[in-house]
Amino acid sequence: MNNFTYYNPTKIIFGEGTIGKIAGEIPADARVLITYGGGSIKKNGVYQEVMDALKDHKVIEFGGIEANPQYAKLVKAVEICRNEHIGFILSVGGGSVLDGTKFIAAAAPFAGEPWDILAKQAKISRAIPFGAILTLPATGSEMNPWAVISRKEIGKKLAFGAPPHTFPKFSVLDPTVTQSLSKRQRGNGVVDAFVHVTEQYLTYPQNSPLQDRYAEAILKTLIEEGPKYVENPENSNAAKNVVWSATMALNGLISVGVVTDWATHSIGHELTVLHNIDHARTLAIVWPGMMRVMKAEKREKLLQFAARVWDINTGSHDEKIEQAIVRTEDFFNNMGLPVKLADYNLNREVIGKVIKNLKNNNYITLGEKKRVTPEIVELIFRDRL
Amino acid sequence: MNNFTYYNPTKIIFGEGTIGKIAGEIPADARVLITYGGGSIKKNGVYQEVMDALKDHKVIEFGGIEANPQYAKLVKAVEICRNEHIGFILSVGGGSVLDGTKFIAAAAPFAGEPWDILAKQAKISRAIPFGAILTLPATGSEMNPWAVISRKEIGKKLAFGAPPHTFPKFSVLDPTVTQSLSKRQRGNGVVDAFVHVTEQYLTYPQNSPLQDRYAEAILKTLIEEGPKYVENPENSNAAKNVVWSATMALNGLISVGVVTDWATHSIGHELTVLHNIDHARTLAIVWPGMMRVMKAEKREKLLQFAARVWDINTGSHDEKIEQAIVRTEDFFNNMGLPVKLADYNLNREVIGKVIKNLKNNNYITLGEKKRVTPEIVELIFRDRL
Repeated sequence: MNNFTYYNPTKIIFGEGTIGKIAGEIPADARVLITYGGGSIKKNGVYQEVMDALKDHKVIEFGGIEANPQYAKLVKAVEICRNEHIGFILSVGGGSVLDGTKFIAAAAPFAGEPWDILAKQAKISRAIPFGAILTLPATGSEMNPWAVISRKEIGKKLAFGAPPHTFPKFSVLDPTVTQSLSKRQRGNGVVDAFVHVTEQYLTYPQNSPLQDRYAEAILKTLIEEGPKYVENPENSNAAKNVVWSATMALNGLISVGVVTDWATHSIGHELTVLHNIDHARTLAIVWPGMMRVMKAEKREKLLQFAARVWDINTGSHDEKIEQAIVRTEDFFNNMGLPVKLADYNLNREVIGKVIKNLKNNNYITLGEKKRVTPEIVELIFRDRL
Repeated sequence: MNNFTYYNPTKIIFGEGTIGKIAGEIPADARVLITYGGGSIKKNGVYQEVMDALKDHKVIEFGGIEANPQYAKLVKAVEICRNEHIGFILSVGGGSVLDGTKFIAAAAPFAGEPWDILAKQAKISRAIPFGAILTLPATGSEMNPWAVISRKEIGKKLAFGAPPHTFPKFSVLDPTVTQSLSKRQRGNGVVDAFVHVTEQYLTYPQNSPLQDRYAEAILKTLIEEGPKYVENPENSNAAKNVVWSATMALNGLISVGVVTDWATHSIGHELTVLHNIDHARTLAIVWPGMMRVMKAEKREKLLQFAARVWDINTGSHDEKIEQAIVRTEDFFNNMGLPVKLADYNLNREVIGKVIKNLKNNNYITLGEKKRVTPEIVELIFRDRL
């Protein structure tokens, strides 16, 4: 285990009927910008709950933040923050709205060109304070300082984070609001959280038994609760456990002191940029190939994953690993996510495009040992045709 | 799972050679009070590291804080804080020094009688900011807002906490400093952390699969790493895992949304007050009796504990539970802690005294369902003679 610093000051407000608590968490004199997406919050009652809670605040709205939040849209909100002297931003939505909000919060007081925050990882020394009401469990953005922003005009999807400034001050997780999600959104969320965990866990042994067991705890909970949650949105017990698992999957706790992978995400991002495939769906495509091709590097952890997460105890080492990969593919399928490029009518032509984009973003070598080269990416995709 | 709020703003600085980082965490213009215990920090090099790190700060020392920190001692430090305009307190020691520091930090700016903070749970609205350098893993105080303070003159041992004011601003966990601990201190620490987990886990099912698995993760890590840590203080891998497990055992994360027990602690506290038995050792005495006597209440969780933590899969339900209790007693013994009153030359006379003290502290009914009555306490002790 390496030395580490862990600091996570986001307050989690969890449970049914907790949206009303936000009034006490936002300074009374702050002018509030409410950010949201396509407007589903106006149909499921969340918008009204928020407005009721903030009836004594000066509120300005900014809707229309897309999935894979777009730079061109977000800079408009940056202008509003500056012109309207916004003192607090409230993100009402899923991970995309919240990621967009993090960018708005950091860019508004930033003196330079906002794009440099992403393209040059420009130093952020402050941000407008912000909080979140999470309506879709998946990305973990509600308890971490990271965000991924897209700029489709130039085919870029880039990450940034400026802890502690870009931690939400609070995040409200009301599992009942997930009831209005589509089955597709629920399935995507489970798989996204699952792969967040494996990106931090399926590397190589590093004397981190507690981090390992925490990762396995989240994976097993998602495997048990995910199907109930996807099949029946009224199952509030399952919704609670999936929501909490998704938050814990990416709040930094399971990766303290260990190296992480994230190659599946980097490659998946390019599939989203090129073919507009949902983020989680790109992970379901890439993950099985990544595990097969990087099997030697990840051998010990894949065997641990097979034994502890999937209870696979028979067969040779190679057979156990393959069983674990197939069981995971089946799980992704059961969550409603296809795992092959052909399911999206894509063929081998996509490979060269993805590799070209990765190179353009300087992602030449990926993974915990920087051994996922363009040649490896090609092998991974050949497994996924 | 019940609704909950989780907020933990303590920054953890973990690893070998990290003590020097404190300089950047303490305001440069703050007058610093350094609190410590019996002076072991002056022998193991920690004191010198601290002084080197704070060479540009105005520093005042306050040593001699006892195990089971005593009110009479701590109020002297409160006076120093007031007279010397202390702006930051740095606790250098184990859980007792840190608990004492939390009380000092809260009492110094408190307008009323300091004892009321403990006896009347008086409202605390601010505290002197403080941080910790942890030299003994056990109590979890380094990442929570709670403290237990004793006043031996009147036979009281009482807890308080005033989140967020009594969270440490930071805690430095350098596992190498545990090398100078005695074998007894190391064993006590492992058992203390173990029982912290069971107090939050061995209750009844509450639809909290992730919290359960996190609890089991800590228990299994302590079972695997504890013996290596106790036998060989030079095993830095084991020390790292025990230190991190002890912190995670009581930082609030495994108890979100669920009820907790804490009856073993309440009863154990009275054994410390009456007979000056080390805190962890009182837990090792009481715990097996608590589990046997409360077996019906805790049945499902004890069976889960037997299966998942001790891998016990044969026998009737009662046999599995008894096996799990015996395995845990053996573990406490292997850590060097006796588990019977007779090991301390105590007999049944202690029972009445403990019950009397519990009643004096208004602990009439304890446990997750408030069913640990004085009659139950008597049954528990009869199991421990």
